[in-house]
Amino acid sequence: MASRDYNKEFFNVTFPYQYVAVVEIDRQKKLNSYTQQMFTDIGTIFSRLSIDPEVRVIVLTAAGERAFTAGLDVTAAANGPLTGDGMADQKCEDTARKAWSLRRHIKEIQEPVSEIEKCEKPVICVMHGISYGAAIDISTCADIRICSKDARFSVREVAIGLAADVGTLTRLPKTNVGMSWIKDVCLTARDFGAQEALSVGFVSGVFENKKAALDRGLELAKDIANKSPVAVQGTKAVINYSRDHSVNDGLDYIAVWNAAMLQTKDVKDALMSGLQKRTPTFEKL
Amino acid sequence: MASRDYNKEFFNVTFPYQYVAVVEIDRQKKLNSYTQQMFTDIGTIFSRLSIDPEVRVIVLTAAGERAFTAGLDVTAAANGPLTGDGMADQKCEDTARKAWSLRRHIKEIQEPVSEIEKCEKPVICVMHGISYGAAIDISTCADIRICSKDARFSVREVAIGLAADVGTLTRLPKTNVGMSWIKDVCLTARDFGAQEALSVGFVSGVFENKKAALDRGLELAKDIANKSPVAVQGTKAVINYSRDHSVNDGLDYIAVWNAAMLQTKDVKDALMSGLQKRTPTFEKL
Amino acid sequence: MASRDYNKEFFNVTFPYQYVAVVEIDRQKKLNSYTQQMFTDIGTIFSRLSIDPEVRVIVLTAAGERAFTAGLDVTAAANGPLTGDGMADQKCEDTARKAWSLRRHIKEIQEPVSEIEKCEKPVICVMHGISYGAAIDISTCADIRICSKDARFSVREVAIGLAADVGTLTRLPKTNVGMSWIKDVCLTARDFGAQEALSVGFVSGVFENKKAALDRGLELAKDIANKSPVAVQGTKAVINYSRDHSVNDGLDYIAVWNAAMLQTKDVKDALMSGLQKRTPTFEKL
Amino acid sequence: MASRDYNKEFFNVTFPYQYVAVVEIDRQKKLNSYTQQMFTDIGTIFSRLSIDPEVRVIVLTAAGERAFTAGLDVTAAANGPLTGDGMADQKCEDTARKAWSLRRHIKEIQEPVSEIEKCEKPVICVMHGISYGAAIDISTCADIRICSKDARFSVREVAIGLAADVGTLTRLPKTNVGMSWIKDVCLTARDFGAQEALSVGFVSGVFENKKAALDRGLELAKDIANKSPVAVQGTKAVINYSRDHSVNDGLDYIAVWNAAMLQTKDVKDALMSGLQKRTPTFEKL
Amino acid sequence: MASRDYNKEFFNVTFPYQYVAVVEIDRQKKLNSYTQQMFTDIGTIFSRLSIDPEVRVIVLTAAGERAFTAGLDVTAAANGPLTGDGMADQKCEDTARKAWSLRRHIKEIQEPVSEIEKCEKPVICVMHGISYGAAIDISTCADIRICSKDARFSVREVAIGLAADVGTLTRLPKTNVGMSWIKDVCLTARDFGAQEALSVGFVSGVFENKKAALDRGLELAKDIANKSPVAVQGTKAVINYSRDHSVNDGLDYIAVWNAAMLQTKDVKDALMSGLQKRTPTFEKL
Amino acid sequence: MASRDYNKEFFNVTFPYQYVAVVEIDRQKKLNSYTQQMFTDIGTIFSRLSIDPEVRVIVLTAAGERAFTAGLDVTAAANGPLTGDGMADQKCEDTARKAWSLRRHIKEIQEPVSEIEKCEKPVICVMHGISYGAAIDISTCADIRICSKDARFSVREVAIGLAADVGTLTRLPKTNVGMSWIKDVCLTARDFGAQEALSVGFVSGVFENKKAALDRGLELAKDIANKSPVAVQGTKAVINYSRDHSVNDGLDYIAVWNAAMLQTKDVKDALMSGLQKRTPTFEKL
Repeated sequence: MASRDYNKEFFNVTFPYQYVAVVEIDRQKKLNSYTQQMFTDIGTIFSRLSIDPEVRVIVLTAAGERAFTAGLDVTAAANGPLTGDGMADQKCEDTARKAWSLRRHIKEIQEPVSEIEKCEKPVICVMHGISYGAAIDISTCADIRICSKDARFSVREVAIGLAADVGTLTRLPKTNVGMSWIKDVCLTARDFGAQEALSVGFVSGVFENKKAALDRGLELAKDIANKSPVAVQGTKAVINYSRDHSVNDGLDYIAVWNAAMLQTKDVKDALMSGLQKRTPTFEKL
Repeated sequence: MASRDYNKEFFNVTFPYQYVAVVEIDRQKKLNSYTQQMFTDIGTIFSRLSIDPEVRVIVLTAAGERAFTAGLDVTAAANGPLTGDGMADQKCEDTARKAWSLRRHIKEIQEPVSEIEKCEKPVICVMHGISYGAAIDISTCADIRICSKDARFSVREVAIGLAADVGTLTRLPKTNVGMSWIKDVCLTARDFGAQEALSVGFVSGVFENKKAALDRGLELAKDIANKSPVAVQGTKAVINYSRDHSVNDGLDYIAVWNAAMLQTKDVKDALMSGLQKRTPTFEKL
Repeated sequence: MASRDYNKEFFNVTFPYQYVAVVEIDRQKKLNSYTQQMFTDIGTIFSRLSIDPEVRVIVLTAAGERAFTAGLDVTAAANGPLTGDGMADQKCEDTARKAWSLRRHIKEIQEPVSEIEKCEKPVICVMHGISYGAAIDISTCADIRICSKDARFSVREVAIGLAADVGTLTRLPKTNVGMSWIKDVCLTARDFGAQEALSVGFVSGVFENKKAALDRGLELAKDIANKSPVAVQGTKAVINYSRDHSVNDGLDYIAVWNAAMLQTKDVKDALMSGLQKRTPTFEKL
Repeated sequence: MASRDYNKEFFNVTFPYQYVAVVEIDRQKKLNSYTQQMFTDIGTIFSRLSIDPEVRVIVLTAAGERAFTAGLDVTAAANGPLTGDGMADQKCEDTARKAWSLRRHIKEIQEPVSEIEKCEKPVICVMHGISYGAAIDISTCADIRICSKDARFSVREVAIGLAADVGTLTRLPKTNVGMSWIKDVCLTARDFGAQEALSVGFVSGVFENKKAALDRGLELAKDIANKSPVAVQGTKAVINYSRDHSVNDGLDYIAVWNAAMLQTKDVKDALMSGLQKRTPTFEKL
Repeated sequence: MASRDYNKEFFNVTFPYQYVAVVEIDRQKKLNSYTQQMFTDIGTIFSRLSIDPEVRVIVLTAAGERAFTAGLDVTAAANGPLTGDGMADQKCEDTARKAWSLRRHIKEIQEPVSEIEKCEKPVICVMHGISYGAAIDISTCADIRICSKDARFSVREVAIGLAADVGTLTRLPKTNVGMSWIKDVCLTARDFGAQEALSVGFVSGVFENKKAALDRGLELAKDIANKSPVAVQGTKAVINYSRDHSVNDGLDYIAVWNAAMLQTKDVKDALMSGLQKRTPTFEKL
Repeated sequence: MASRDYNKEFFNVTFPYQYVAVVEIDRQKKLNSYTQQMFTDIGTIFSRLSIDPEVRVIVLTAAGERAFTAGLDVTAAANGPLTGDGMADQKCEDTARKAWSLRRHIKEIQEPVSEIEKCEKPVICVMHGISYGAAIDISTCADIRICSKDARFSVREVAIGLAADVGTLTRLPKTNVGMSWIKDVCLTARDFGAQEALSVGFVSGVFENKKAALDRGLELAKDIANKSPVAVQGTKAVINYSRDHSVNDGLDYIAVWNAAMLQTKDVKDALMSGLQKRTPTFEKL
């Protein structure tokens, strides 16, 4: 599948190495801020990467030096459903009907963002510069989060009068970051930097600048891409399942999972190439 | 609602800034240790603050320099139900009936403490000096925990022959602090200091002394009090819900929640005042 | 119960102090790597220690200076069910039947490892040197994890083409270690050292060398062994329950639990000896 | 505790037999329909019966021949928060603030109704005549539901434009009545009779008339009151717990529960009196 | 939206009454058996009906007198992924890769079927004649199930060597039908008739023939369509939520839900028209 | 494996038809009542049948005409842990230690009973005559329950002063039998007959006498034994999983399960023999 199949107005999708896809947000004039269409587009991209046999790992980054993303495009949002004006076409006066419409609208944005989490392949999110609002929603869907020193994060939502509903409040507690710190940043909407993000465990690596962070992201990606895709994608699936279930349920799930997956010849190939000190190659999945 | 409405024998409740309540434990002669009545009182205070429209955020602190609290008043407890003597009035000989009575008694103490967690407004717990036993039960119900350098913590219960039952064992694992460390401090009843508490994420800030910690607590409180109460209280509610539910459930809950809450004019007010570089004011909630 | 009752071919079980058992993996020629029989044996040992009234706390360590364990014995495994050859005796051609057999086989290894977690007494895991694969499966079942500076950890499984199924993927997210870091080490199979393990909270202490780590483990063990076993074992049980349940469920469980356990005379004994500044002694449990 | 302690304006509480309380709704002029105060009152009554050692089982019935209850008093409700008019005192224009107020209001009615379910003693609900709306909310909180032949039931809420929020929609699926039938009666608000209620399992007995149904209710009550209260109340607690938890959790809970409760001498008393063919007497609980 | 927008090759969608849609399976030559494309199509139809403001309730039926559906089209399936032959294009030899492909394939069929359950509007399933396999999968997604006397049901899957994976095994236990009976019909694949289906509660009504059953289905539909859509659709949403959650969670959910939905003017309209003995009309949702 | 391998003192295990095992309780002098050893023995039998490739379905019945089982052997129990006398060897005075011992004891009886539920093969329980106490615990672990007309059931426990702890209170609500009826029989310990058991769905068939019931049980067994064991045992596993999980979890589980199991050639064999009108034979599992 050629890279041109994936590109959207504000997203560039490239394949710099075998099995490695890079998704780049590119709306630099607006600090890579998100319109509703962009949420739809990123969902479409990840749901397709999820089943593309040429892809084994995905790096998510953003164009330009200033921002990973400034979050929701407030100008667009100010005319949209958030402030009720966007409902004008419905001329909906009844509170319950407006609530119904808003609930659907929220789910319409949640769903594409969740595609990043549901993507069968690991997603490495590399952040830099301004990383506000949607940056948190999106990166908490990724498997691995790293950033450059200049990254500035903020859970922006309370500053504009709302409780974050695209996933931040739900997924941050599942990152295993300390709850006292999570409440601090979510209730104050204050900025926090790369070093703070590292020390609490929100990111698992901080690098000198965007280039160094991206290099590390790509290195991780290549490393993962060289592993058996049956093993890698199974590992992601089982960790995500375990996060939301009891230990007993998790153990049972992996036993059922591996009942099929251990029958792969990748195990033999990996064991053999390990003994022979060579890099194994694995069939497409 | 005047502050005198809230005061209890060993609790001072003041309102130093608009929308900010300060609850101060004040039983200095006994190192602010808790009697059963004090558990009842703190529950009453927080359940009322929870629905007081003049209050948007609460700081919980303690009087004196020596202790946040030394925990349960052991002298009182030694004559109480813990050692069975307090059951004397019931002349209860049957183990099952005594068990029934103890279970009710435990719930009677759990319930007021849980009011701190259920309180609709954010609670910032500022600890200093001796912070033992009940200090952990109470502070794990708070949203944000900070302390001064001299804070000495301890999950005391195993040292007096019992498994902590007011909430520590249940809520500590939900603070996302490392489980190996949690088991260490719960199984040994050893002291740990402010720096250790910070490094594992039990507190999210350590300050030079009690005054500095309290100043930071009040600053956080004012900052939160300036935000939309619809946004702030929704954020607390949804994070707490998400902690105990799967990601899918959390996403669904926030969508239903915001179906109503996004209809607030606070969003428009916050967006406008953001553009106009002024502080918004929000109606009471 | 004499120590000889516990010894297995590759495990030494000793009782250096009253109420303290030490389980030592001892298969030094193979870097303490695990055969299937060893999984069975460690399960048997812990299920028996669990109900031995002479034991109140267990230290798990390994013989030799080079390794806690190098994980699964790959040579043995290469001829076993992992690669399908071990199934030969069944002459099983049908994929579903082979899957059924593999699922049972996985559960047969999961079950003894889970005995370490289910053990009623606290387990302190002291790791050093090479600590790969099964080292993570086993140590995430322990209550407290500490190590020496030279410890080298690795979640090895993706490197040999499979998703870890003995418990690592299920239990690591429950250690409250940052999820971004968990995914990093699980998806890359990379090594990480003692300092990294400490900073993310996987271990709660790092010591100069194996001897110092083991000394600390034994010190912790003696400290816990001096506490009321009713209190200590109740604390473990309730924390483990709370990990997999909501806060409300956890509070209810401890109330039911303590309805019986608060009736112990250990509370009175502990309170009294505390006032009298002497070490209490507690009856067997 | 004398019966006069329990009486409320529209509730009569009597004690016709030892350990048996009868709660009678009595607002016959309005077909026993509920005002908000009555919800509060029934909650107060049941929370007090729950801990009254003179009470071991409760029969819930209603005065007059025409109705168990016609449900919510629509006239009162029409001027209340349901239609927004009752909010007038708050002069609340903002949708989110009104939502906040409604949510609190719903919980204020849910909570007293839930006291019937939380009541430690078994509750037998005996219905007759018109049994609409609140009759379903209340009776699904009871442990045993029986009725007379003339009972007419209806889940009324969709007929007045709302989704039932006092508990019917949540608890009906937990009665184990067929879901197709539940959806039928909840979505159409149609009447159904005693025979239909019996055949689907909503009630477990139908009797000729109100008197016969009440007689059977009292007979059941006396029968249960003669049993060990430790056994009876434990049975209720564990069934209710099991309803909302997995089988494994349920088994674990009853094991912890009975660790204390099996130590009752009621077991020996019951076994002995069984052998001696006499009725045992059990101490108060 | 005109009916022609909905029609698919083997589905007719009509709108016989205001707000009532009828979806008719029509592949009579093959006893209305399902190809994979038909699963996709029925999902598309229901996901669109879910948000069509002209639709408030849906009746699902099938053309011809002989069958609601004979289930999966076995001839088509015999050449498809079920028997591995359909995988030929992938030339996939590795068991794990084939497993991966099958898992995706199963989810591709599960998802459209689940659209029937997720549909915001109530679905009434009217069955007649042969109602095998997929008939159970589909009808357990519906809210109300009724049938004609001649209906013959069967959970067919074990008869063709597989465990039902489109939803029957998961949803049947949630219909609250007796588990002993569920296991009986699922493990034997035996036929059962309309009367048996009624007596166990699988269907909530049996009618003389297909016409009578369909008439009743339409009558129910018209009745529901006359109710407030805010009330009706909220009722469905909350019952479905409650089925999969604890009572406490269910109560909390309806409180948040109704915080918005009680602000509808439908309540006032319904109350008023009730008093005035006229049929209310409700705005579109 | 010959039948003699399975026999225990009070259990006969026979294999009347290929793949069909019959387990017969045989302690007729004591109305087939259970000693503690018998619980252990029945667990051992079922855990071994679970993995015996010669067995595909199990019928559980009891010898003699008078009773399936009268439940716990009260005479034995009266000298055992239930009344505390059996604890004498421990000379345990401390309530907590006695509680600890009782909890272990309860689990020791729960575990073998749970083996009946965990058994990978379907279990058909055929009851007759007196079927008290343990009869309910055991039969709720079975998949299918049928009985003869003379069966008399009773949840006996409250009559002897205790809440049933071997599984009845936990599993009865999961049989989907109406909760009002469950509470009725559990709180009163009253007898109920075969017809009542059928009408509420506790059993799914009633037959003229023991012989007729057993014949039907064997017929069901033979019917199931002729089906693909991959399909049958998968069906049992997935229904049991679904009972304790949400619909979404259930759908996901069956998809993972069938990823391996659909690769069986049993599907092709079953489809072919269906077309060829002959009985298929399936390989051992």
